[in-house]
Order: sequence, then C-alpha cells, then structure tokens
Amino acid sequence: MPSYKLTYFPVKALGEPIRFLLSYAEIPFEDDRFDREDWPKIKPTTPYGQVPVLEVDGKKVAQSSAISRYLAKQCGLAGKDDWEALLIDATVDTIHDVRAKLAAFHYEEDETYKATKRKVADEVVPFYLERLDAQVKDNGGYFVGGALSWADLTFVAILDYLNFMNSSDLIEKYENLKQLKEKVLNVPAIKSWISKRPESEL
Amino acid sequence: MPSYKLTYFPVKALGEPIRFLLSYAEIPFEDDRFDREDWPKIKPTTPYGQVPVLEVDGKKVAQSSAISRYLAKQCGLAGKDDWEALLIDATVDTIHDVRAKLAAFHYEEDETYKATKRKVADEVVPFYLERLDAQVKDNGGYFVGGALSWADLTFVAILDYLNFMNSSDLIEKYENLKQLKEKVLNVPAIKSWISKRPESEL
Repeated sequence: MPSYKLTYFPVKALGEPIRFLLSYAEIPFEDDRFDREDWPKIKPTTPYGQVPVLEVDGKKVAQSSAISRYLAKQCGLAGKDDWEALLIDATVDTIHDVRAKLAAFHYEEDETYKATKRKVADEVVPFYLERLDAQVKDNGGYFVGGALSWADLTFVAILDYLNFMNSSDLIEKYENLKQLKEKVLNVPAIKSWISKRPESEL
Repeated sequence: MPSYKLTYFPVKALGEPIRFLLSYAEIPFEDDRFDREDWPKIKPTTPYGQVPVLEVDGKKVAQSSAISRYLAKQCGLAGKDDWEALLIDATVDTIHDVRAKLAAFHYEEDETYKATKRKVADEVVPFYLERLDAQVKDNGGYFVGGALSWADLTFVAILDYLNFMNSSDLIEKYENLKQLKEKVLNVPAIKSWISKRPESEL
C-alpha cells in the first residue's frame, strides 16, 4: 500500500472529510497538523498555495473535494454508476456552496460588511438546507441511492466547521439531516476515528 | 441516445463548459436560454435553486462541475485512471477558485467593499495563474497527462466570463495558457460549436 500523508491546519474544517474517508477506507495515514505560524513557510510548497494537501508516496495533490472523490472511489463510496457519481458530486458541491456563504461573513473583518453578508447567508442557507433535508428523505435516509456515499461523510465531517462559522447548530430543525448525522457517526470506522482524533473546536 | 436539455441564462459563464463538453461528445442538446426576468419563476423548479441545470430524459441535475465531469467520462476526457481524474478535478476546482475571487468583487454593489475585494483578487489571482501556467508547461501543453481533458475545456470555455469580470485579458502574460487556449479553440468540435453558438458578452 502507498504511504499517505495529509497536511492541514490543526482543525477539522476542510481536512476532516479526507480524514473520514481515509479512516473509512482503512488506509493508515500520517495526520500532519502544522501550527498557524508555520503557514507562510508551507504555502509555497503546496500545488496551489492551499491546504489540505495529500501526499501519496510523496506525490502532492490539492483540493479537498478532488482528494475525497479519489479516496471514495477506492472504498466503494462514489456511487454504483456514473449517474449516481454525478448526483453525489452535485450534492458535495452544494454543501460547499453552503460553506462559502457562511465563510463570506465569518472571515470578513469589517463589521458592517460582515452584517450584510450574514444577512445574505441567513436567507440563502436555509433554502439549501431544506432541499438537502428533502433529498435525504427522498433517498432512503442518505443523500444518494439509499446507500452511504462520500457526500454523507463530507456533510457530517464538515458540519462542526459550518456550525462554528454559523455560531449555532445549522441542522437543528432538519430531522432527516439529523438522522443522517447519527447514522454516519455510528459507522464503526468513523466512530473509531472520532474517538482517537485530536480535539479541535472547528 | 437519451434527450439532453441545458437550461441557463443567455450567457456563456457557467453553462459554457457543459456546452463545450456536449459538443465535443457529439451529443445533440436543447440549448435552453431563458430571459433574466423569468429567473424567479424558474429558480424553484431547479434542484438547488441554481442553474445551469441539465435534463437527461427529463431528470434534472445541477452543479456545473458535476455535470461536466459526468459528460467528460462519456467522451474520454476524464483521465486515463483515477490518479489523472484526481489531478483534473483539482485543476477544475482551482479554476473555480479563481472565478470565486473575481466574482467576489464583480457582483459586489458597495463601491468601497468592491475596491477591497478587487485588491484581494489582484494579489491572489496571478498566484493561481502562474501555477496553472507552469502546470501546462510541465504536462506537455495540457493541464494533465499530456492530453486533452475536461480541465482544458473548462478553462477555455469559462475564460470569456473570467475576463469579463476582470475587465481585461487574464492570460495575456501566460504563454502556456495562451497556447492551451488556441489548441482548445482549434479542436474541430469546439470550433464548430463556437461558429454556431449565440453571441453573448460573458
């Protein structure tokens, strides 16, 4: 088996979907978490100036969704055919659209703009969550095809980060998403990973 | 062959990578372009309140990258193995990171905020473009594996939109990206599509 090393900040956020997938695939990996003060040194060594970066036998690849999809293919979580793969991909991109709306105010330093962006997110995010909740309801308790996929793992892995930016539980009112969360957290490989991962707020 | 219908605003932007791929794959499709005033009526009929939406035999799917990847698999533009597929996916996501940086100021209505976001984009975008240009140089004149992929088609299809937001030619200084553009525009199926597509600024 190739050697795997995941380099990221000492948080869950965009690294956690990859860590969930490596854990689910039973791929041992070096969980390389660097201090924020070292980022300027690390940034130029990454493919596009971003982390997470996965090294597979020393070959570096970037972009969390691209990496997650690659790992999902290796452990049967990427859909049973191209059509399901498409529906899974579209769901993941929509989860990241939600993240972008939250990040737009969370990382804004100017208080006036922050309030404006917060207002936009407060309108748009529930629109997405209603649709994602209905999607789980219509697909046998999972996002796609009545079976676990990397869309489910991505959503649950990134939820702490989304809630952190939102300052409250985004899925409180969404029963199907809440049930999906419980289901994913009870997958033995995920449960085991969570029990041993380092503590971090986001 | 299933029936294909692409619904989008009457512009290139996020619809054009899909139109390039449908053209390359020689898939006949209904190019459904709606007037902006009809958007409020159409929005609730889409999977996530967004376009482009592709209908395949009446089944609607959203998210431009997810749709493009699905079509790319059908015409051999998604890499020769999972590793190449990963590198292509990472490249496409990085192209969309560039788009997001440009969109952050382009769609901002507050002039002060717009100027701040423009400054951020002016710093970050060249950083990405240098890396993408070097990537083409290092990979035989294409983004991945010395062969045409949907990353190349996506970049060239979306470039008019990126340049429109930027108000000037983003790749003027990047010789490898300029050569890639010429190569893609000279692919017979793409050339034929461009010669017959409706005119639009972005």
